[in-house]
Amino acid sequence: MKPVNIGLLGLGTVGSATVDLLLANAGDISDRIGRPVRVTHAAVRDPSKPRNCDLTGVEMVSDPSELVSHPDIDIVVELMGGTDLALQLCTQAVNAGKHLVTANKALIAEHGNELFAAAQASGVVVAYEAAVAGGIPIIKAIREGLAGNRINSVAGIINGTGNFILSEMRDKGRPFDDVLREAQELGYAEADPTFDVEGIDAAHKLTILASIAFGIPLNFPAVFTEGIGNLTAEDVSNAEKLGYRIKHLGIAEQTPQGVSLRVHPTLIPQSQLIANVHGVMNAVQVQSDAVGESLYYGAGAGGGPTGSAVVADILDIARALASAADQRMPSLGFLPERLKNLPLLAIEAIESAYYLRMQAADQPGVMAEVTGILGGLGISIEAIEQTEPAQHDTQATIIMLTHRVIEKQMVEALQQIEALETIEGAVTMIRVEHFNTRQSS
Amino acid sequence: MKPVNIGLLGLGTVGSATVDLLLANAGDISDRIGRPVRVTHAAVRDPSKPRNCDLTGVEMVSDPSELVSHPDIDIVVELMGGTDLALQLCTQAVNAGKHLVTANKALIAEHGNELFAAAQASGVVVAYEAAVAGGIPIIKAIREGLAGNRINSVAGIINGTGNFILSEMRDKGRPFDDVLREAQELGYAEADPTFDVEGIDAAHKLTILASIAFGIPLNFPAVFTEGIGNLTAEDVSNAEKLGYRIKHLGIAEQTPQGVSLRVHPTLIPQSQLIANVHGVMNAVQVQSDAVGESLYYGAGAGGGPTGSAVVADILDIARALASAADQRMPSLGFLPERLKNLPLLAIEAIESAYYLRMQAADQPGVMAEVTGILGGLGISIEAIEQTEPAQHDTQATIIMLTHRVIEKQMVEALQQIEALETIEGAVTMIRVEHFNTRQSS
Repeated sequence: MKPVNIGLLGLGTVGSATVDLLLANAGDISDRIGRPVRVTHAAVRDPSKPRNCDLTGVEMVSDPSELVSHPDIDIVVELMGGTDLALQLCTQAVNAGKHLVTANKALIAEHGNELFAAAQASGVVVAYEAAVAGGIPIIKAIREGLAGNRINSVAGIINGTGNFILSEMRDKGRPFDDVLREAQELGYAEADPTFDVEGIDAAHKLTILASIAFGIPLNFPAVFTEGIGNLTAEDVSNAEKLGYRIKHLGIAEQTPQGVSLRVHPTLIPQSQLIANVHGVMNAVQVQSDAVGESLYYGAGAGGGPTGSAVVADILDIARALASAADQRMPSLGFLPERLKNLPLLAIEAIESAYYLRMQAADQPGVMAEVTGILGGLGISIEAIEQTEPAQHDTQATIIMLTHRVIEKQMVEALQQIEALETIEGAVTMIRVEHFNTRQSS
Repeated sequence: MKPVNIGLLGLGTVGSATVDLLLANAGDISDRIGRPVRVTHAAVRDPSKPRNCDLTGVEMVSDPSELVSHPDIDIVVELMGGTDLALQLCTQAVNAGKHLVTANKALIAEHGNELFAAAQASGVVVAYEAAVAGGIPIIKAIREGLAGNRINSVAGIINGTGNFILSEMRDKGRPFDDVLREAQELGYAEADPTFDVEGIDAAHKLTILASIAFGIPLNFPAVFTEGIGNLTAEDVSNAEKLGYRIKHLGIAEQTPQGVSLRVHPTLIPQSQLIANVHGVMNAVQVQSDAVGESLYYGAGAGGGPTGSAVVADILDIARALASAADQRMPSLGFLPERLKNLPLLAIEAIESAYYLRMQAADQPGVMAEVTGILGGLGISIEAIEQTEPAQHDTQATIIMLTHRVIEKQMVEALQQIEALETIEGAVTMIRVEHFNTRQSS
C-alpha cells in the first residue's frame, strides 16, 4: 500500500526524536498499519543548522506555508512551538485538508476551539496526545478508555520541572531558589522559568484535560494558577511530619455547582500513589463513577516520550485515513455541538481542606482567639501543632490542618486572623486534598 | 441516527453493571458517538433469577444461539465466563458477522488465536479491554498509546486477590492461610482459590499483554507460573528489612534470546511505584524504548471497572461500525499475518536476581562453603545477612541477595547448596527485579 507521508514543522528535540522513532521502529509500524510511514518534508527556521537525526529522503522546505498545503503530504506534524506562527500554519494545514498532529499545548489550550472548528469544517483530525504529559497516553485513556465514565476529577503532576524542584526541596531540605538554579543548569528549567514554576505550563495542560474529561470547551483563561516560588523548606518539611507531601497539582473538578480549574501547591497524604511520583516524572489521577480511582504515570517531556505520543497519533490517523469524518474521534471526545457550557467556579467558590502556618506571640489566649475565628466561620480543625519559641524568641509557630470548607470562608478567616495583634505578618495557606476519600458528586 | 443494539450474554455482576452504566451515562454516550447505545437482548441461564439492573426494554432470550445471530443486534457482549460454551457462542457471533466484546480472559488467552482468525474472516472486531485489569485501559495504552515504541517488558500486579493477600501479610504479619480465609469471606477469593493464588488468572492476562506488547500470537501454555501459597510471613518481613516488597507479578520480557512469560512472587525495591500498589488494586508497568518506564493503575475487577472497559469497547466499535475492516485496529495491534513467532524462553533461560533463605548449622566454614558454590557458578552476591541462632538452637538463618544470573546457574547452585551437610532442608528462592535500572535490550 501507498506510504503515509508526513510533513514536519520544526526539527528540534521532539522533531528529531520523531524522525528517529519512525525510522527505528519502521518495521513494527508497517506491521501495525499495513503501510509505511515516512517523513517526506520538513520546514525549519534555519536549514543550515545541523540536526540530530537521519534526514535521508526528507525534502527541506524553506517556506512552511508551502509545506502545509503540499499535495504529497497526508499529515502535517507541528513541533515548532509558540502560538502565533504555529496557529497560522496549523489553520492553513487543516483548511488545506491536511490532518494535523501537534505537541503544542499552548496552541491547543488557547486556540484549540477555533482550530478544532476549522478542522471539523474540513473533515480532518487534529490530534494532540503529545501536548499533555508526553510519554503518558492520557488523552487516549480519558477520551477513549474511560469514555463510559462520568469523570468527577482529574489531578495531575503535569510539569516535570516543578516536580523536580519540589522533590529536591523535600529530599535535601534545600531552598527553592537553589534548586531552581540547579534545574536550569541541568536543562530542566528554561532561563525564564515563569511558565514552569508559576504554573502556566500546567494550566495549559489542565485546560486540555478538563475539556476531554467533562466535555466542555477549552477555557484557559478560567484556570486559577498559584506557583511554587513562595514555598519554604519549612512548609515542605512540616507537610512531611504531618504525613503529607507537597506537590504542584493541576486539578479539574466537576461539582454540582460547576467546574473548578486550578493549579496550585497541594498537600497530599503520603500514602497516595501520586504523592510518590518523584523527580521530573508526571502522573495523572482520575476519579470517575464506574472505575473509581485510576492513575497514569510516565515521563512528561523529552524527545522520546513526546515523539512516542506524536507517532501514536500519526498511526491512529493513518489507520483511519480513508474513514468518513463522522467515524473518527471528535477533537474533545464529544461531538462539538454537544459540548456543555458548564459554569466555571472562581477560586473562592471551591471546597478544600487547608494547611495554615502562622507566627504568634507566645502569650496566653492566642490559640483561643485563632480557633475562635475559625469556629465562628464554620471551619473545623483536624490537627493543630504549636512549636515552642526558641530561647530569647517571643514568637511561636502554629501549624494547622483544617477540614474541608468553601475557600471564601477561609479567606475571610485569614483576614481576621492576620488582623489580630498577637499574629505577626501573613498567614501561609496551602490547599490540602484527599482524593480517594472524596464522595462522588 | 439509528441506535447501536447490544445483545448481552450473561447478566451477573459485570453484565448488570454494564446495563446500569449504559443507562446512567446514556446522555454522555450519545453526545460522544452521536447515537444511543441500548441493550436490546440478553440471554441468561436462569431467566427467573432476579437481576440487579433495570431491564426495561430488554428482551430476554432463552436460547443464546438465537441471540448471537439475531438480525437486530450490532454487537454481542459476552460476559458469561468459561471457555466451552463461551467459545462456541462467540465463534457463532463473529461467524454471523457480529462484532464481539468480551471480558473473558481465559477465552482470549486460550482460544483467542482461533477466535481472532474467525473474526478476521468475517470482517468484525473482537474487543477485550475488560479481560485484563478491568478499570485500567491497559490494552488501549499498549496497543495504541505506545504503538510507536518497541516494548521491552511488561510487569503487572494483575490479580487483585493475590495482591490483597500479600498486602495483608506485610501490613499485619499474618500467615498466608489466615489471610486467604479472610479474602474468601470478603468475597475477593473464590471458594476454590487456585486460579488466583496459583497465578493461572494472572497467566491468562499476561498472555494477552505479551501478545499486544510484542506482536506475537497468544501463547498461554508457555507461561511459567509459581503461586504465592508457599510464601512465609518471614520472607515477607525479610524483604521489607532489605528495602524490598514481595508482589505476585506477571512479567513478559523481550530479550535478544527470546520472550519470557512468567508469573511468580517477586521482590521489588520499595522505592518503585509498583511496590506501593496495595490491596485489591492492579497496576501494569511498561518499559519501552521511546517512553522509558510508564505505569497504569486502577481497580482490576468488580462490576463498575469491568463494565467501564466493556462500554469503552462498545463505543470504539460503535464509532467505526461503518468503517472498512482494514481501517480498524487488528485484534492484537499488528496485522495478523505480521505477527512474529519469537522464540519462547523456558524459565531456566531467564536472567534474574535472587533472594535466598536457608537454615545452616551454626559452625565455622558454612558461609565459605555456600559462597564458594555461588562463586564457582559465577553468581555474585549483593547482600548477605546471618541471624544468630536463638539459645539452645544450633541453626542460623542465612539471607542472601544475588546479582543477576541465568536461572539455570542458580538452580545448579541450589542443588549443590542443598546437598551440603551443614544446610538443613530446602533453600527458599524468590526472584528479584529492579525494572528501572535495566538496560534496554
